[in-house]
Amino acid sequence: MSDISIIGLGNMARTIGARAVVGGNAVEVIGRDVARAKNLAEALGGGTTAGMFGTAPAGDIVILAVPHDTAAPVVAQYGDMLAGKVIVDITNAFNSDATGLTTSAGTSIAQEVAKVAPAGAHAVKAFNTVFGHVLAQGRPLDVLIAGDDAQAKATVSAFIKSLGLRPLDTGFLEMAHWLEGTALVMMGLGRHGAGTFDFTFGVNTSA
Amino acid sequence: MSDISIIGLGNMARTIGARAVVGGNAVEVIGRDVARAKNLAEALGGGTTAGMFGTAPAGDIVILAVPHDTAAPVVAQYGDMLAGKVIVDITNAFNSDATGLTTSAGTSIAQEVAKVAPAGAHAVKAFNTVFGHVLAQGRPLDVLIAGDDAQAKATVSAFIKSLGLRPLDTGFLEMAHWLEGTALVMMGLGRHGAGTFDFTFGVNTSA
Repeated sequence: MSDISIIGLGNMARTIGARAVVGGNAVEVIGRDVARAKNLAEALGGGTTAGMFGTAPAGDIVILAVPHDTAAPVVAQYGDMLAGKVIVDITNAFNSDATGLTTSAGTSIAQEVAKVAPAGAHAVKAFNTVFGHVLAQGRPLDVLIAGDDAQAKATVSAFIKSLGLRPLDTGFLEMAHWLEGTALVMMGLGRHGAGTFDFTFGVNTSA
Repeated sequence: MSDISIIGLGNMARTIGARAVVGGNAVEVIGRDVARAKNLAEALGGGTTAGMFGTAPAGDIVILAVPHDTAAPVVAQYGDMLAGKVIVDITNAFNSDATGLTTSAGTSIAQEVAKVAPAGAHAVKAFNTVFGHVLAQGRPLDVLIAGDDAQAKATVSAFIKSLGLRPLDTGFLEMAHWLEGTALVMMGLGRHGAGTFDFTFGVNTSA
Protein backbone atom coordinates (compact mmCIF):
# COMPACT_ATOMS: atom_id res chain seq x y z
CA MET A 1 0.00 0.00 0.00
CA SER A 2 1.20 3.47 -0.88
CA ASP A 3 0.28 7.01 0.10
CA ILE A 4 -0.65 8.77 -3.12
CA SER A 5 -1.38 12.40 -3.85
CA ILE A 6 -2.85 13.15 -7.25
CA ILE A 7 -2.59 16.74 -8.42
CA GLY A 8 -5.39 17.26 -10.91
CA LEU A 9 -9.10 16.53 -11.02
CA GLY A 10 -9.57 15.37 -14.61
CA ASN A 11 -10.21 12.01 -16.21
CA MET A 12 -6.77 10.55 -15.52
CA ALA A 13 -6.90 11.69 -11.89
CA ARG A 14 -10.28 10.03 -11.52
CA THR A 15 -9.21 6.85 -13.32
CA ILE A 16 -5.92 6.34 -11.49
CA GLY A 17 -7.55 7.40 -8.23
CA ALA A 18 -10.33 4.86 -8.60
CA ARG A 19 -7.92 2.00 -9.26
CA ALA A 20 -5.66 3.21 -6.43
CA VAL A 21 -8.54 3.04 -3.98
CA VAL A 22 -9.47 -0.45 -5.11
CA GLY A 23 -5.82 -1.40 -4.72
CA GLY A 24 -5.89 -0.39 -1.08
CA ASN A 25 -3.82 2.77 -1.33
CA ALA A 26 -4.36 5.94 0.70
CA VAL A 27 -5.35 8.55 -1.86
CA GLU A 28 -5.43 12.33 -1.76
CA VAL A 29 -6.75 14.37 -4.69
CA ILE A 30 -5.59 17.94 -5.04
CA GLY A 31 -7.06 20.72 -7.14
CA ARG A 32 -7.38 24.47 -7.32
CA ASP A 33 -11.16 24.10 -7.05
CA VAL A 34 -11.63 22.85 -3.50
CA ALA A 35 -15.30 22.00 -3.99
CA ARG A 36 -14.49 19.88 -7.04
CA ALA A 37 -11.63 18.20 -5.18
CA LYS A 38 -13.99 17.29 -2.36
CA ASN A 39 -16.55 15.97 -4.83
CA LEU A 40 -13.94 13.78 -6.49
CA ALA A 41 -12.69 12.54 -3.12
CA GLU A 42 -16.22 11.56 -2.16
CA ALA A 43 -16.79 9.89 -5.51
CA LEU A 44 -13.61 7.86 -5.14
CA GLY A 45 -14.47 6.84 -1.61
CA GLY A 46 -12.24 4.55 0.44
CA GLY A 47 -11.19 7.38 2.70
CA THR A 48 -9.89 9.52 -0.14
CA THR A 49 -9.09 13.02 1.07
CA ALA A 50 -9.15 16.34 -0.76
CA GLY A 51 -6.07 18.52 -0.61
CA MET A 52 -5.74 22.19 -1.37
CA PHE A 53 -3.56 23.12 -4.31
CA GLY A 54 -0.31 24.64 -3.14
CA THR A 55 -0.10 23.04 0.27
CA ALA A 56 2.16 20.09 1.04
CA PRO A 57 0.87 16.85 -0.49
CA ALA A 58 0.23 14.03 1.98
CA GLY A 59 1.43 11.25 -0.28
CA ASP A 60 4.93 9.88 -0.72
CA ILE A 61 4.06 9.51 -4.40
CA VAL A 62 2.77 12.64 -6.13
CA ILE A 63 1.11 12.04 -9.48
CA LEU A 64 0.96 14.99 -11.86
CA ALA A 65 -2.41 14.53 -13.57
CA VAL A 66 -2.30 17.99 -15.10
CA PRO A 67 -2.01 19.34 -18.64
CA HIS A 68 1.49 18.64 -19.98
CA ASP A 69 2.43 22.27 -20.25
CA THR A 70 1.71 22.88 -16.59
CA ALA A 71 3.49 19.83 -15.15
CA ALA A 72 6.91 21.43 -14.69
CA PRO A 73 5.45 24.82 -13.60
CA VAL A 74 3.37 23.08 -10.94
CA VAL A 75 6.44 21.27 -9.62
CA ALA A 76 8.39 24.54 -9.59
CA GLN A 77 5.56 26.22 -7.73
CA TYR A 78 5.42 23.48 -5.10
CA GLY A 79 9.19 23.65 -4.68
CA ASP A 80 10.50 22.27 -1.40
CA MET A 81 7.08 20.87 -0.48
CA LEU A 82 7.98 18.04 -2.87
CA ALA A 83 11.35 17.30 -1.25
CA GLY A 84 11.76 13.57 -0.82
CA LYS A 85 8.71 12.78 -2.91
CA VAL A 86 8.49 10.49 -5.90
CA ILE A 87 6.98 12.67 -8.63
CA VAL A 88 5.15 10.75 -11.35
CA ASP A 89 4.69 12.46 -14.71
CA ILE A 90 1.96 10.83 -16.77
CA THR A 91 1.63 13.48 -19.47
CA ASN A 92 2.11 13.49 -23.22
CA ALA A 93 3.33 16.67 -24.87
CA PHE A 94 1.40 16.08 -28.07
CA ASN A 95 1.11 18.81 -30.65
CA SER A 96 -2.35 19.91 -31.72
CA ASP A 97 -3.05 16.90 -33.94
CA ALA A 98 -1.01 14.36 -31.93
CA THR A 99 1.42 13.66 -34.74
CA GLY A 100 4.44 15.08 -32.93
CA LEU A 101 5.69 16.36 -29.61
CA THR A 102 5.95 19.92 -28.40
CA THR A 103 9.08 18.95 -26.49
CA SER A 104 12.45 18.86 -28.23
CA ALA A 105 14.87 16.09 -29.00
CA GLY A 106 16.74 15.07 -25.88
CA THR A 107 14.09 16.13 -23.44
CA SER A 108 10.56 15.36 -22.30
CA ILE A 109 8.03 16.60 -19.80
CA ALA A 110 9.43 14.17 -17.23
CA GLN A 111 12.93 15.54 -17.68
CA GLU A 112 11.65 19.12 -17.43
CA VAL A 113 9.90 18.11 -14.22
CA ALA A 114 13.13 16.60 -12.88
CA LYS A 115 15.02 19.83 -13.61
CA VAL A 116 12.76 21.91 -11.39
CA ALA A 117 12.14 19.27 -8.69
CA PRO A 118 13.66 19.96 -5.27
CA ALA A 119 16.61 18.06 -3.82
CA GLY A 120 15.72 14.55 -2.78
CA ALA A 121 12.74 14.32 -5.10
CA HIS A 122 12.82 11.88 -7.99
CA ALA A 123 10.85 12.04 -11.23
CA VAL A 124 9.44 8.91 -12.80
CA LYS A 125 7.63 8.72 -16.11
CA ALA A 126 4.68 6.33 -16.05
CA PHE A 127 1.17 5.76 -17.43
CA ASN A 128 1.67 7.88 -20.56
CA THR A 129 1.51 4.78 -22.80
CA VAL A 130 -1.86 3.80 -21.39
CA PHE A 131 -5.12 5.15 -22.75
CA GLY A 132 -7.16 6.48 -19.85
CA HIS A 133 -10.41 4.94 -21.09
CA VAL A 134 -8.69 1.55 -21.34
CA LEU A 135 -7.21 1.91 -17.88
CA ALA A 136 -10.71 2.68 -16.62
CA GLN A 137 -11.96 -0.66 -17.95
CA GLY A 138 -9.90 -2.51 -15.36
CA ARG A 139 -8.02 -4.59 -17.93
CA PRO A 140 -4.56 -5.87 -17.08
CA LEU A 141 -1.95 -3.96 -19.01
CA ASP A 142 1.68 -2.91 -19.09
CA VAL A 143 2.71 0.40 -17.57
CA LEU A 144 6.04 1.43 -19.05
CA ILE A 145 8.15 3.54 -16.73
CA ALA A 146 11.46 5.39 -16.84
CA GLY A 147 13.51 7.16 -14.21
CA ASP A 148 17.01 7.74 -12.91
CA ASP A 149 16.48 6.60 -9.33
CA ALA A 150 16.09 2.86 -8.76
CA GLN A 151 14.32 3.24 -5.41
CA ALA A 152 11.82 5.70 -6.85
CA LYS A 153 11.09 3.28 -9.69
CA ALA A 154 10.65 0.46 -7.18
CA THR A 155 8.19 2.62 -5.24
CA VAL A 156 6.19 3.43 -8.37
CA SER A 157 6.33 -0.19 -9.52
CA ALA A 158 4.85 -1.37 -6.22
CA PHE A 159 2.05 1.16 -6.63
CA ILE A 160 1.40 0.03 -10.20
CA LYS A 161 1.23 -3.59 -9.07
CA SER A 162 -1.33 -2.61 -6.44
CA LEU A 163 -3.53 -1.50 -9.35
CA GLY A 164 -3.37 -4.97 -10.87
CA LEU A 165 -1.07 -3.74 -13.63
CA ARG A 166 2.40 -4.77 -14.74
CA PRO A 167 5.17 -2.17 -14.33
CA LEU A 168 7.95 -2.46 -16.90
CA ASP A 169 11.10 -0.42 -16.49
CA THR A 170 12.46 0.96 -19.75
CA GLY A 171 15.56 2.58 -18.28
CA PHE A 172 16.76 6.02 -17.29
CA LEU A 173 14.70 9.18 -17.40
CA GLU A 174 16.07 10.05 -20.85
CA MET A 175 13.86 7.23 -22.10
CA ALA A 176 10.83 9.39 -21.24
CA HIS A 177 11.30 11.16 -24.57
CA TRP A 178 10.84 7.87 -26.37
CA LEU A 179 7.96 6.82 -24.14
CA GLU A 180 6.24 10.01 -25.24
CA GLY A 181 7.04 8.94 -28.78
CA THR A 182 5.58 5.51 -28.09
CA ALA A 183 2.34 7.24 -27.15
CA LEU A 184 2.45 8.96 -30.54
CA VAL A 185 2.81 5.55 -32.18
CA MET A 186 -0.24 4.42 -30.22
CA MET A 187 -2.20 7.42 -31.51
CA GLY A 188 -1.12 6.48 -35.04
CA LEU A 189 -2.18 2.89 -34.50
CA GLY A 190 -5.57 4.01 -33.25
CA ARG A 191 -6.12 6.16 -36.32
CA HIS A 192 -4.72 3.68 -38.83
CA GLY A 193 -3.84 0.03 -38.37
CA ALA A 194 -5.63 -0.83 -35.15
CA GLY A 195 -8.78 1.00 -36.22
CA THR A 196 -9.68 1.55 -32.58
CA PHE A 197 -8.25 3.22 -29.52
CA ASP A 198 -9.55 0.37 -27.41
CA PHE A 199 -6.25 -1.43 -27.04
CA THR A 200 -3.25 -1.90 -24.82
CA PHE A 201 0.34 -1.72 -26.04
CA GLY A 202 3.07 -3.73 -24.44
CA VAL A 203 5.28 -6.73 -24.11
CA ASN A 204 4.49 -10.35 -24.84
CA THR A 205 7.11 -12.76 -23.57
CA SER A 206 5.18 -15.96 -24.25
CA ALA A 207 6.38 -17.93 -27.24
CA MET B 1 2.49 -13.88 -53.06
CA SER B 2 4.99 -11.12 -53.64
CA ASP B 3 8.24 -10.73 -55.54
CA ILE B 4 10.81 -9.70 -52.97
CA SER B 5 14.38 -8.55 -53.35
CA ILE B 6 16.44 -8.34 -50.20
CA ILE B 7 19.56 -6.22 -50.35
CA GLY B 8 21.90 -7.55 -47.69
CA LEU B 9 23.14 -10.95 -46.61
CA GLY B 10 23.10 -10.66 -42.82
CA ASN B 11 20.90 -12.07 -40.11
CA MET B 12 17.82 -10.00 -40.93
CA ALA B 13 18.14 -10.85 -44.63
CA ARG B 14 18.34 -14.51 -43.75
CA THR B 15 15.49 -14.35 -41.25
CA ILE B 16 13.06 -12.40 -43.42
CA GLY B 17 14.12 -14.40 -46.47
CA ALA B 18 13.43 -17.71 -44.72
CA ARG B 19 9.96 -16.64 -43.65
CA ALA B 20 9.29 -15.18 -47.08
CA VAL B 21 10.10 -18.48 -48.75
CA VAL B 22 7.84 -20.38 -46.35
CA GLY B 23 5.14 -17.82 -47.12
CA GLY B 24 5.30 -18.64 -50.81
CA ASN B 25 6.99 -15.48 -52.02
CA ALA B 26 9.53 -15.28 -54.82
CA VAL B 27 12.73 -14.18 -53.14
CA GLU B 28 15.95 -12.68 -54.48
CA VAL B 29 18.91 -11.98 -52.20
CA ILE B 30 21.41 -9.36 -53.28
CA GLY B 31 24.90 -8.76 -51.99
CA ARG B 32 28.26 -7.38 -52.99
CA ASP B 33 29.78 -10.80 -52.39
CA VAL B 34 28.24 -12.90 -55.15
CA ALA B 35 29.45 -16.19 -53.70
CA ARG B 36 27.87 -15.40 -50.35
CA ALA B 37 24.66 -14.31 -52.05
CA LYS B 38 24.52 -17.63 -53.89
CA ASN B 39 25.17 -19.52 -50.67
CA LEU B 40 22.35 -17.69 -48.92
CA ALA B 41 20.00 -18.27 -51.86
CA GLU B 42 20.74 -21.97 -51.74
CA ALA B 43 20.29 -22.06 -47.98
CA LEU B 44 16.91 -20.35 -48.27
CA GLY B 45 15.78 -22.70 -51.03
CA GLY B 46 12.34 -22.45 -52.58
CA GLY B 47 13.74 -21.10 -55.82
CA THR B 48 15.49 -18.16 -54.16
CA THR B 49 17.79 -16.43 -56.59
CA ALA B 50 20.98 -14.48 -56.02
CA GLY B 51 21.25 -10.99 -57.48
CA MET B 52 24.34 -8.93 -58.07
CA PHE B 53 24.62 -5.71 -56.09
CA GLY B 54 24.06 -2.69 -58.30
CA THR B 55 21.91 -4.33 -60.96
CA ALA B 56 18.13 -3.93 -61.13
CA PRO B 57 16.35 -5.89 -58.39
CA ALA B 58 13.82 -8.45 -59.61
CA GLY B 59 11.30 -7.85 -56.83
CA ASP B 60 8.50 -5.33 -56.64
CA ILE B 61 9.35 -4.98 -52.97
CA VAL B 62 12.96 -4.18 -52.16
CA ILE B 63 13.96 -4.72 -48.55
CA LEU B 64 16.99 -2.82 -47.32
CA ALA B 65 18.62 -5.28 -44.92
CA VAL B 66 21.79 -3.24 -44.67
CA PRO B 67 23.48 -1.23 -41.90
CA HIS B 68 21.39 1.85 -41.13
CA ASP B 69 24.05 4.29 -42.27
CA THR B 70 24.20 2.71 -45.71
CA ALA B 71 20.44 2.44 -46.36
CA ALA B 72 20.00 5.85 -48.00
CA PRO B 73 23.36 5.70 -49.83
CA VAL B 74 22.42 2.31 -51.30
CA VAL B 75 19.09 3.71 -52.54
CA ALA B 76 20.86 6.72 -54.02
CA GLN B 77 23.34 4.41 -55.74
CA TYR B 78 20.57 2.27 -57.23
CA GLY B 79 18.76 5.39 -58.40
CA ASP B 80 16.30 4.82 -61.23
CA MET B 81 16.64 1.05 -60.95
CA LEU B 82 14.28 1.41 -57.99
CA ALA B 83 11.65 3.41 -59.91
CA GLY B 84 8.21 2.03 -59.14
CA LYS B 85 9.49 -0.18 -56.34
CA VAL B 86 8.25 -0.33 -52.79
CA ILE B 87 11.37 0.21 -50.70
CA VAL B 88 11.23 -1.22 -47.20
CA ASP B 89 13.56 0.22 -44.58
CA ILE B 90 13.96 -2.11 -41.59
CA THR B 91 16.89 -0.38 -39.90
CA ASN B 92 17.40 1.30 -36.56
CA ALA B 93 19.79 4.21 -36.34
CA PHE B 94 20.89 3.40 -32.79
CA ASN B 95 23.84 5.18 -31.26
CA SER B 96 26.71 3.07 -29.97
CA ASP B 97 24.95 1.94 -26.78
CA ALA B 98 21.41 1.92 -28.18
CA THR B 99 20.14 4.63 -25.85
CA GLY B 100 19.48 7.17 -28.59
CA LEU B 101 19.28 7.66 -32.34
CA THR B 102 21.92 8.96 -34.68
CA THR B 103 19.17 10.56 -36.73
CA SER B 104 17.76 13.96 -35.75
CA ALA B 105 14.33 15.09 -34.61
CA GLY B 106 11.94 15.21 -37.54
CA THR B 107 13.68 12.60 -39.60
CA SER B 108 14.55 8.91 -39.69
CA ILE B 109 16.37 6.47 -41.90
CA ALA B 110 13.12 5.76 -43.75
CA GLN B 111 12.62 9.46 -44.48
CA GLU B 112 16.23 9.79 -45.63
CA VAL B 113 15.62 6.82 -47.92
CA ALA B 114 12.47 8.47 -49.29
CA LYS B 115 14.38 11.67 -50.04
CA VAL B 116 16.83 9.90 -52.35
CA ALA B 117 14.38 7.38 -53.84
CA PRO B 118 13.54 7.82 -57.53
CA ALA B 119 10.19 9.03 -58.81
CA GLY B 120 7.46 6.46 -58.44
CA ALA B 121 9.21 4.60 -55.64
CA HIS B 122 7.68 4.61 -52.16
CA ALA B 123 9.42 4.10 -48.85
CA VAL B 124 7.80 2.09 -46.08
CA LYS B 125 9.20 1.58 -42.60
CA ALA B 126 8.65 -1.94 -41.29
CA PHE B 127 10.18 -4.68 -39.14
CA ASN B 128 12.36 -2.33 -37.05
CA THR B 129 10.27 -3.01 -33.93
CA VAL B 130 10.83 -6.74 -34.24
CA PHE B 131 13.87 -8.48 -32.78
CA GLY B 132 15.46 -10.61 -35.49
CA HIS B 133 16.01 -13.60 -33.19
CA VAL B 134 12.33 -13.47 -32.17
CA LEU B 135 11.24 -13.23 -35.79
CA ALA B 136 13.38 -16.28 -36.50
CA GLN B 137 11.43 -18.29 -33.92
CA GLY B 138 8.36 -18.19 -36.11
CA ARG B 139 6.15 -16.64 -33.42
CA PRO B 140 3.17 -14.55 -34.46
CA LEU B 141 3.86 -10.88 -33.84
CA ASP B 142 2.95 -7.36 -34.82
CA VAL B 143 4.92 -5.60 -37.54
CA LEU B 144 4.44 -1.86 -37.16
CA ILE B 145 4.70 0.04 -40.42
CA ALA B 146 4.62 3.64 -41.60
CA GLY B 147 4.57 5.26 -45.00
CA ASP B 148 3.06 8.02 -47.08
CA ASP B 149 1.65 5.90 -49.90
CA ALA B 150 -1.42 3.80 -49.11
CA GLN B 151 -0.87 1.36 -51.98
CA ALA B 152 2.74 0.77 -50.97
CA LYS B 153 1.62 0.08 -47.42
CA ALA B 154 -1.03 -2.32 -48.70
CA THR B 155 1.64 -4.13 -50.72
CA VAL B 156 3.93 -4.43 -47.71
CA SER B 157 1.03 -5.46 -45.48
CA ALA B 158 0.13 -8.31 -47.84
CA PHE B 159 3.74 -9.46 -47.75
CA ILE B 160 3.81 -9.30 -43.94
CA LYS B 161 0.63 -11.35 -43.75
CA SER B 162 2.22 -13.96 -46.01
CA LEU B 163 4.83 -14.39 -43.26
CA GLY B 164 2.10 -15.22 -40.75
CA LEU B 165 2.54 -11.85 -39.06
CA ARG B 166 0.15 -8.98 -38.37
CA PRO B 167 0.89 -5.68 -40.14
CA LEU B 168 -0.23 -2.60 -38.23
CA ASP B 169 -0.16 0.78 -39.91
CA THR B 170 0.98 3.60 -37.62
CA GLY B 171 0.50 6.41 -40.14
CA PHE B 172 2.60 8.54 -42.43
CA LEU B 173 6.32 8.17 -42.96
CA GLU B 174 7.05 10.85 -40.34
CA MET B 175 6.02 8.22 -37.81
CA ALA B 176 9.18 6.28 -38.74
CA HIS B 177 11.10 8.52 -36.36
CA TRP B 178 8.90 7.35 -33.50
CA LEU B 179 9.02 3.74 -34.65
CA GLU B 180 12.80 3.99 -34.36
CA GLY B 181 12.18 5.39 -30.87
CA THR B 182 9.89 2.48 -30.10
CA ALA B 183 12.78 0.17 -30.89
CA LEU B 184 14.85 2.12 -28.36
CA VAL B 185 12.13 1.53 -25.79
CA MET B 186 12.30 -2.18 -26.62
CA MET B 187 16.07 -2.13 -26.02
CA GLY B 188 15.43 -0.44 -22.67
CA LEU B 189 12.82 -3.03 -21.79
CA GLY B 190 15.20 -5.84 -22.64
CA ARG B 191 17.90 -4.37 -20.40
CA HIS B 192 15.61 -3.39 -17.56
CA GLY B 193 12.00 -4.33 -16.93
CA ALA B 194 11.54 -7.28 -19.26
CA GLY B 195 14.86 -8.84 -18.26
CA THR B 196 15.06 -10.56 -21.63
CA PHE B 197 15.15 -9.68 -25.29
CA ASP B 198 12.99 -12.68 -26.03
CA PHE B 199 9.74 -10.77 -26.42
CA THR B 200 7.42 -9.17 -28.90
CA PHE B 201 6.01 -5.68 -28.55
CA GLY B 202 2.63 -4.74 -29.88
CA VAL B 203 -1.07 -4.26 -29.65
CA ASN B 204 -3.59 -6.20 -27.61
CA THR B 205 -7.19 -5.44 -28.50
CA SER B 206 -8.78 -8.21 -26.44
CA ALA B 207 -10.44 -7.04 -23.26
